Amino acid sequence: MDLLVQKFGGSSLATPQKVLSAARRAIGEFEAGRSVVVVVSAQGDYTDRLITMARQIHPEPNPREMDTLMAVGEQMSIALMAIAIHSLGHGAVSLTGAQAGIRTDNVSSKARIRTIDTSRLRRELEREQIVIVAGFQGVDVDDNITTLGRGGSDTTAVALAAALGAERCDIYTDVEGVYTADPRLVPQARWIPVIDYDELLELASLGARVMHSRAVELAKRYGVPFRVRPSFSESEGTLVTDLSGEMEQVDVRGAALETEEAKVTIRHVPDRPGVAATIFSEIAAASINVDMIVQNVSEQNRADVSFTVMQRDLPRAVQVAGRLADELNAAGVDVNEEIAKVSIVGTGMRSHAGVAERMFRALADQKINILMISTSEIKVSCVIEAPAGERALRAVHNAFELEKNDTDTKDDNE
Amino acid sequence: MDLLVQKFGGSSLATPQKVLSAARRAIGEFEAGRSVVVVVSAQGDYTDRLITMARQIHPEPNPREMDTLMAVGEQMSIALMAIAIHSLGHGAVSLTGAQAGIRTDNVSSKARIRTIDTSRLRRELEREQIVIVAGFQGVDVDDNITTLGRGGSDTTAVALAAALGAERCDIYTDVEGVYTADPRLVPQARWIPVIDYDELLELASLGARVMHSRAVELAKRYGVPFRVRPSFSESEGTLVTDLSGEMEQVDVRGAALETEEAKVTIRHVPDRPGVAATIFSEIAAASINVDMIVQNVSEQNRADVSFTVMQRDLPRAVQVAGRLADELNAAGVDVNEEIAKVSIVGTGMRSHAGVAERMFRALADQKINILMISTSEIKVSCVIEAPAGERALRAVHNAFELEKNDTDTKDDNE
Repeated sequence: MDLLVQKFGGSSLATPQKVLSAARRAIGEFEAGRSVVVVVSAQGDYTDRLITMARQIHPEPNPREMDTLMAVGEQMSIALMAIAIHSLGHGAVSLTGAQAGIRTDNVSSKARIRTIDTSRLRRELEREQIVIVAGFQGVDVDDNITTLGRGGSDTTAVALAAALGAERCDIYTDVEGVYTADPRLVPQARWIPVIDYDELLELASLGARVMHSRAVELAKRYGVPFRVRPSFSESEGTLVTDLSGEMEQVDVRGAALETEEAKVTIRHVPDRPGVAATIFSEIAAASINVDMIVQNVSEQNRADVSFTVMQRDLPRAVQVAGRLADELNAAGVDVNEEIAKVSIVGTGMRSHAGVAERMFRALADQKINILMISTSEIKVSCVIEAPAGERALRAVHNAFELEKNDTDTKDDNE
Repeated sequence: MDLLVQKFGGSSLATPQKVLSAARRAIGEFEAGRSVVVVVSAQGDYTDRLITMARQIHPEPNPREMDTLMAVGEQMSIALMAIAIHSLGHGAVSLTGAQAGIRTDNVSSKARIRTIDTSRLRRELEREQIVIVAGFQGVDVDDNITTLGRGGSDTTAVALAAALGAERCDIYTDVEGVYTADPRLVPQARWIPVIDYDELLELASLGARVMHSRAVELAKRYGVPFRVRPSFSESEGTLVTDLSGEMEQVDVRGAALETEEAKVTIRHVPDRPGVAATIFSEIAAASINVDMIVQNVSEQNRADVSFTVMQRDLPRAVQVAGRLADELNAAGVDVNEEIAKVSIVGTGMRSHAGVAERMFRALADQKINILMISTSEIKVSCVIEAPAGERALRAVHNAFELEKNDTDTKDDNE
């Protein structure tokens, strides 16, 4: 039987009317003859309200207890969604993470799913119930409640789709789907009907925050195709799947702008083996995520080592970098918060030459200076001065003719 | 080791400060060398807010889903209480009903506890944790979440005290304890230091709403003594225990006034066997709780059958009574909403004669007319005209000298 997993985020459940609207979507699929599993997040800003409640008691609440507290948001949603489906005349049963058989490790607030015992789920589906599962939560081996951290409900949906062998997984959000660029910045941005897992992963990590990387990685690993769909319209959204077997791959799928990073440079570091390892193991030890790293030999066997971090991590990064500069007898630390990062992503880059050059040319034509360059198999990123960010994004979008549909673009580049 | 169960109601947990205050009580007992299990209700009016949320979606939400929804109130409280205890530097672990091993039948919204698997509880106590358990909830044999209905958290506390063989069970409330009468109505009312289970049961059912009968019945059945204590002061409250073995029992422990009942009379019912059974089986079939029943032969082998019901049930009671009057060829139905019921309670009545007479005399001295009388082994109730209610209560309280302490009263009646 055709089995579908639907996931509704907090903004799609924020009011009784929205809960009923989501319920109608589940019923629509059920009436079309499908088995339906619905994964829900906490309503609206409910999770934030729970955090506030806890912090009124203690600024750093115990992690296990925070998980127990946070899990109530999704438990409320499953009950309300089931009540909504009943009110529309259909059978539904809610399951908490524990009841749905979702077993995790015991890392509070960022637990990883280990196994899913689907027996209860399957039993309820056989009874022709629409099954509502609490996203974001599970239980560890001792039945302690755990939560999965950011993107947790998406992860739950994808994991259930994998465990149940679902035909489809629909992630309902408050966006129309995935675009070639942020439509607020690039009016010509075009909706992308199909995208590869890796492309979405790169776009997501580049500031196009459609879905948390973790759920996309899980979908890729288990080969679960899913749709990112708007909850407010009938649009089909964007299908995310494995396009690596496609005969003809699009070279550039989309472009993204990240404006919340900052650049740190440690100047005149001794250019000998192991220095980079020292620097970045210290940075990692301070729990700072580094994005781009560039190292250039400057003079007299000394190198400038630059890296970017999120602006919120900058104070700690500068502290660590300053200490390292002293230890390594470097010349000092420079900081630049006024940067932006423009990137292009596409699995076709693997086989198409000249993509990076075309991007550099587009920026040069706009007289935009490139501060750092980083490339991967399916991505090229350039760090530039912040004020040029949006202009750079539009220039790149235009250079690769992303506003045209896939076929056009493809023809154009062959 | 000395083991104590404490229960905090919603009003004792309504704000972060109150949660911390309750946490300090638990810690105080723990530091005195006791093992401590804390049972908590949902904060303040949280349960009502959850009901409102559900009704915005459907006026009569599915009972199983309501249980799943309602259970989040207590789950929030256990987490916040554990966070509060941690913040004060002590170890605590929260357990939901399921985690605490509380197994119930599968009757949604009024489940009964069947068994408690205390293994997890004991393990946490051995680890010297203060264990916080969600009141009011459990799981059925299929792991569905159930709630215990009114008085559920008190019931959880008493059941845990029984299952763990606790030395003490302290029920914290927003009253000072149990009084000989409602102090708002009888200024001379005296705090009762010790009361028998049966006496509290009768007082509770007579309008002195200190605790739900169900928890008291459970405590009686398992011989669990407990204290009803104020959360806002250091008072010891009232110890509720088995006084039936006492050599000398107090004849009247307290007096109560119930003003929310109404009297229904079916006039001139044929006085033949089975008529009362017919009437009250029909009333029960309409889910109406009847309190007092009085039947008098009036004339020509016909009887007047009077009974009292809660005023909220009156419209349905009148409907059923009217139909019965037709079927039984009775003369009609009279209704009196302007009644009050004054009662005295005491286990000593079993062995002391003249108690009822003394009550009737007290009312007669005040020229208060008695409309109905009902007696049990440990209780005498009189229905009177509503305007005389408070005066009657004070007269009875005075007649039995309830303002004096137990010893005085006892001497006085021997």
